Amino acid sequence: MLSCPDPVTDLWKTGSHPLEAIFAPRSVAVVGATERPGSVGRTVLWNLISHPFGGTVYPINPKRRNVLGIQAFDRIASLPEAPDLAIIAIPAPGVPAVVQECVDVGVKGAIILSAGFKEIGAEGIELERQIQAIAAGRLRLIGPNCLGVQNPLTGLNATFASQVARRGNVGFISQSGALCTSILDWSLRENVGFSAFISLGSMLDVGWGDLIDYLGDDPHTHSIVIYMESIGDARAFLSAAREVALSKPIIVIKAGRTEAAAQAAASHTGSLTGSDAVLDAAFRRCGVLRVDHIEELFDAAEVLAKQPRPRGDRLSIITNAGGPGVLATDALIRAGGTLAELSAARVDALSGALPAHWSHGNPVDILGDAEPARFAQALKTTLADPNSDGCLVVLTPQAMTDPTATAQAVVETWQASGSTQPILASWMGGAEVDAGEDILNRAGIPTYRYSDQAARLFGLLWQHSYALKALYETPTLTTNHGIDRAKVAAILQAAQAEARPVLTEADSKAVLAAYGIPVVPTQVAATIEEAIAAADSIGYPVVLKLYSHTLTHKTDVGGVQLNLDSSHAVRRAFDRICTSVAEKAGAEHFQGVTVQPMIRVDGYELILGSSQDPQFGPVLLFGTGGQLVEVFQDSAIALPPLNSTLARRLMEQTRIHHALQGVRGRKAVDLDALEQLLVRFSQLVAEQPGIAAIDINPLLV
Amino acid sequence: MLSCPDPVTDLWKTGSHPLEAIFAPRSVAVVGATERPGSVGRTVLWNLISHPFGGTVYPINPKRRNVLGIQAFDRIASLPEAPDLAIIAIPAPGVPAVVQECVDVGVKGAIILSAGFKEIGAEGIELERQIQAIAAGRLRLIGPNCLGVQNPLTGLNATFASQVARRGNVGFISQSGALCTSILDWSLRENVGFSAFISLGSMLDVGWGDLIDYLGDDPHTHSIVIYMESIGDARAFLSAAREVALSKPIIVIKAGRTEAAAQAAASHTGSLTGSDAVLDAAFRRCGVLRVDHIEELFDAAEVLAKQPRPRGDRLSIITNAGGPGVLATDALIRAGGTLAELSAARVDALSGALPAHWSHGNPVDILGDAEPARFAQALKTTLADPNSDGCLVVLTPQAMTDPTATAQAVVETWQASGSTQPILASWMGGAEVDAGEDILNRAGIPTYRYSDQAARLFGLLWQHSYALKALYETPTLTTNHGIDRAKVAAILQAAQAEARPVLTEADSKAVLAAYGIPVVPTQVAATIEEAIAAADSIGYPVVLKLYSHTLTHKTDVGGVQLNLDSSHAVRRAFDRICTSVAEKAGAEHFQGVTVQPMIRVDGYELILGSSQDPQFGPVLLFGTGGQLVEVFQDSAIALPPLNSTLARRLMEQTRIHHALQGVRGRKAVDLDALEQLLVRFSQLVAEQPGIAAIDINPLLV
Repeated sequence: MLSCPDPVTDLWKTGSHPLEAIFAPRSVAVVGATERPGSVGRTVLWNLISHPFGGTVYPINPKRRNVLGIQAFDRIASLPEAPDLAIIAIPAPGVPAVVQECVDVGVKGAIILSAGFKEIGAEGIELERQIQAIAAGRLRLIGPNCLGVQNPLTGLNATFASQVARRGNVGFISQSGALCTSILDWSLRENVGFSAFISLGSMLDVGWGDLIDYLGDDPHTHSIVIYMESIGDARAFLSAAREVALSKPIIVIKAGRTEAAAQAAASHTGSLTGSDAVLDAAFRRCGVLRVDHIEELFDAAEVLAKQPRPRGDRLSIITNAGGPGVLATDALIRAGGTLAELSAARVDALSGALPAHWSHGNPVDILGDAEPARFAQALKTTLADPNSDGCLVVLTPQAMTDPTATAQAVVETWQASGSTQPILASWMGGAEVDAGEDILNRAGIPTYRYSDQAARLFGLLWQHSYALKALYETPTLTTNHGIDRAKVAAILQAAQAEARPVLTEADSKAVLAAYGIPVVPTQVAATIEEAIAAADSIGYPVVLKLYSHTLTHKTDVGGVQLNLDSSHAVRRAFDRICTSVAEKAGAEHFQGVTVQPMIRVDGYELILGSSQDPQFGPVLLFGTGGQLVEVFQDSAIALPPLNSTLARRLMEQTRIHHALQGVRGRKAVDLDALEQLLVRFSQLVAEQPGIAAIDINPLLV
Repeated sequence: MLSCPDPVTDLWKTGSHPLEAIFAPRSVAVVGATERPGSVGRTVLWNLISHPFGGTVYPINPKRRNVLGIQAFDRIASLPEAPDLAIIAIPAPGVPAVVQECVDVGVKGAIILSAGFKEIGAEGIELERQIQAIAAGRLRLIGPNCLGVQNPLTGLNATFASQVARRGNVGFISQSGALCTSILDWSLRENVGFSAFISLGSMLDVGWGDLIDYLGDDPHTHSIVIYMESIGDARAFLSAAREVALSKPIIVIKAGRTEAAAQAAASHTGSLTGSDAVLDAAFRRCGVLRVDHIEELFDAAEVLAKQPRPRGDRLSIITNAGGPGVLATDALIRAGGTLAELSAARVDALSGALPAHWSHGNPVDILGDAEPARFAQALKTTLADPNSDGCLVVLTPQAMTDPTATAQAVVETWQASGSTQPILASWMGGAEVDAGEDILNRAGIPTYRYSDQAARLFGLLWQHSYALKALYETPTLTTNHGIDRAKVAAILQAAQAEARPVLTEADSKAVLAAYGIPVVPTQVAATIEEAIAAADSIGYPVVLKLYSHTLTHKTDVGGVQLNLDSSHAVRRAFDRICTSVAEKAGAEHFQGVTVQPMIRVDGYELILGSSQDPQFGPVLLFGTGGQLVEVFQDSAIALPPLNSTLARRLMEQTRIHHALQGVRGRKAVDLDALEQLLVRFSQLVAEQPGIAAIDINPLLV
């Protein structure tokens, strides 16, 4: 047996994880093992043999008595035992039969290295379908079209890569085999170690959810790093990630940010919620940290694995040079952090310990001739300050500087402090700072070549910490108070019965009102006379808007007439709308007008909407509304349901949120009421799956 | 003599550059040379002696006959010759006398290493004043409070840093001595070489302009890299940079982006034009490339020195793996570039040369088993394609990959092509790709560890190229047609005579009208009766706004009343404004109202403004206007004067520009007319230095 179980973890487990067969097999069959130089079958067999993992390896080859000197068998059924794992490296058409054989003899896991499946078209898709039908519920499969799996802790190299990853605590999962080989080669030089190294391939069976769940349980894995091309089963990913993220950081780089170009869509929300933005919201919601640059992937994994998460966004910077401190400050602010303000007590303590010319502010510049003890003093007061959420120590090697002894002093001070603030360091230089960097790293203080890079990492740390806080929130308690679900059902049914995919404005407002969301009173009028009667009853001035079962963008067809102050004006406006719609779209799109009071816009125009994402279901959008909503691009996205905290966070992501708090002589908006409105709206969207998309634009506050 | 003059350069020069005395001295005096261990005076003397630069070194020390075994002199006047350069390392109070002595004997350059000047307060400022008075026009000075200067090409180490930079072609200027030592240490490991390595100190005399001018003339310097804390003499910087940037890239990192927090200011423009944003505009205007991260400084210098500038923003990506290609695409788009679209001809050529499954699009995925010849084929067609402005080759080391031979093939293909497209490479990995990287680098193809990093660099390249294009534009031809300068002068004089720093709205409009900028007709009314008469003559509905010599933000004091449709409404509005101003600000701020027609806002509200920057003078701002201008933060900044191209570029930097081109059934705005309006406005601002700040908000289009 090769795993080194953590007793506490095992105490709670009733049996071994189904993926153990793949990551910790006692016996492995290599189907397609050959001696042909350069072949996948030869390479993977040799990798398994040359890196002993403690189990037995059986080559399967009907044409040979041995492969690379090891006794070969004609088929899996001929083996002296049912292997835990089968590695399949034969041409695609033969794979379903092999999988059937595996199932028949009781093999528990398989890795299909072969390519030639869905990527080649219909024929490959059919092969995948067959495999899925055979394996379902009987056998767990990784691949096809992947590089395989390595378990550096046991030495298992079930891949056709020539190198084995170093032992360590990062679980790495990549959807690109090519990126695996790059990262592997890079990691050997950079001394990054792994607890698992997984090439995922096409995810015919084992997907993100399974692997996150497995690595979440694995005591040797301290953080999970993912290169993702597609999310696959979104719900499985979310539920596994939400649970694991609380105990282990999950860091993702997801390719294709810019593929999601906004498409023309039936609703504003639809056009603003590109699938990538939804993914962002989903990652935030389940505590997954998304990074944008390849180099940040492992930087983030390292710092999250080594250091506690910051309680807040306030960083203290201690430096022996001004310039690098200011550059770090710039990067910090850009990354969403702030500079900790020095309390009077800390200023006093620092003034007692430092030369008179220290900066008396943050960054704490302890001057170019700072010796190790001065760094230690400044660090000590910082780690003791409850107004600081993290500390960055920056050193530049000047004439009087001792980078190595300073590193030692920093480590000792930090260890003695018992502080729960995360600490980062930047020893800026080359050979002169190497020894110091080494001391810091060995003590678990991550180091960065440049001070600005370190500050950016603190920003990421905080971002992650902030997202996790929401995971600990109690879930939304939905209310039934004042909700008329029957009315909503009736409206939706009627629309469905009449095959109207788009609700009229009046119906939409009735739906909103049924969930307690305030709407402007609106009357429908099919004729000029009805319109005048409605206007008379509402009171002038009024607004007339096109009433159409088919058109949604009313302005585009001249369907909105504002500020009508008399029956005469209403009459003319009705005619104008009717004529304009007929000209621009066709008379069949005109079913009359709606009449509403003219609201004085001296507040703000917001948008609140929802649309269906193919992967994540309903998605909420909040932001600056009005006609220019696509121009301002001031909106944010969240997944329903919301509670008050999540509603507030959604609003905080927009620029308009600043205005809503009151600017330039305007009063603040009632944000609590708005928050509740968002919560109600999210409940509507979550409870009524029949609503594919809904926009309130403008939402006037 | 130690310089290796470029004959072509010298042909055009009438004498040596005044800074030659500092960078290529034939003799150097070290004032304050001692044997005290660890002292600056000992270190700099030893550095000069231990790295022979071909000239004579004279220690100056009145108390010793020799220092480190070298004959010492009591004072500069006692030397056998007037040295080219004096290096001064004595306490600050003694420095003025030494500078006087230098001037007396005809020393041409000095470097003051000593600290203790303006950074210690009034006493130090007085010392600086004395030195300036003595040296002015007679002697060029670097420092005080600096690390000194190195000229790696001659071996000159006139610093107290212990290491000497490698020989190379980067001229590096830093305002932080500490950053110098970090960069120096780092550069030795990373093999970055320098033609000059300069610590600038407090810039008492020699500043950015002098050094950019000097390095611009130096044939050994191929690019100039700057760490800047303050710009000092902005005009000298701009004029030197504008000239040099056309032939050599200048790359700047400027600390303090976030210091420039928007201050409450009298004008919107003032609060939106933080000094850092102005600096950005200035850098763009003179062709200087600003980067945000320390690591980009030398990356950018390398690629700009080695590769031609792209003609456009369209990058072609050739890769043997999908994932890294998509990550590069994301980074490219974020950095402002675009993917080159493959022409039908190129698709045909590629299809003829590649296996059937290649991506048939950009990124050009040539598949995981790509051999060197396939890379070469794909690169050849790309370099020949006029629809591509640059090429990135990405390699991941897969089973069939030969990173070294592929690098060789890429180099040969590129060299044979004679292409003027810049080419970048990313050999992603560790030890397996080292040899290939080396081949690429030696051939002048810059390489990056990650594909996304390389794509970001192309974005920077294009940004730089785009900025330089504007430098080649013919300068603005100002017009006199329809401009009534006399009227503007009269209005400004009247305001000055009455000590009114803020023009009234009516005066402001008259000033704009005098430069042909259309304004809404506005009448001033001091009484209710005048207001009604004005409204009658203009026609209802009208707008009443506070007329005040002192208040500018009218909304804040309830000073704006819209949509008044009768004399009765005007009467009530007048009263309301009068009462509200008295309550909120004091009755003395009410001098009546202005009456204007109510403009139907069915177009866009823009802002066009100008304010004075203390360093750069007048600054223009354009963007989304209205009351929420600070909320939307959708504005851009430029320095006047503008021509049509620059006006267009200013508009292009805003989000509203997209809307102005026509969205959602709205017609496009007449952008040519708006462009001309901006040009006119910039002329007004440039010609009328009496205008400290001016806002048109909203500018309705």
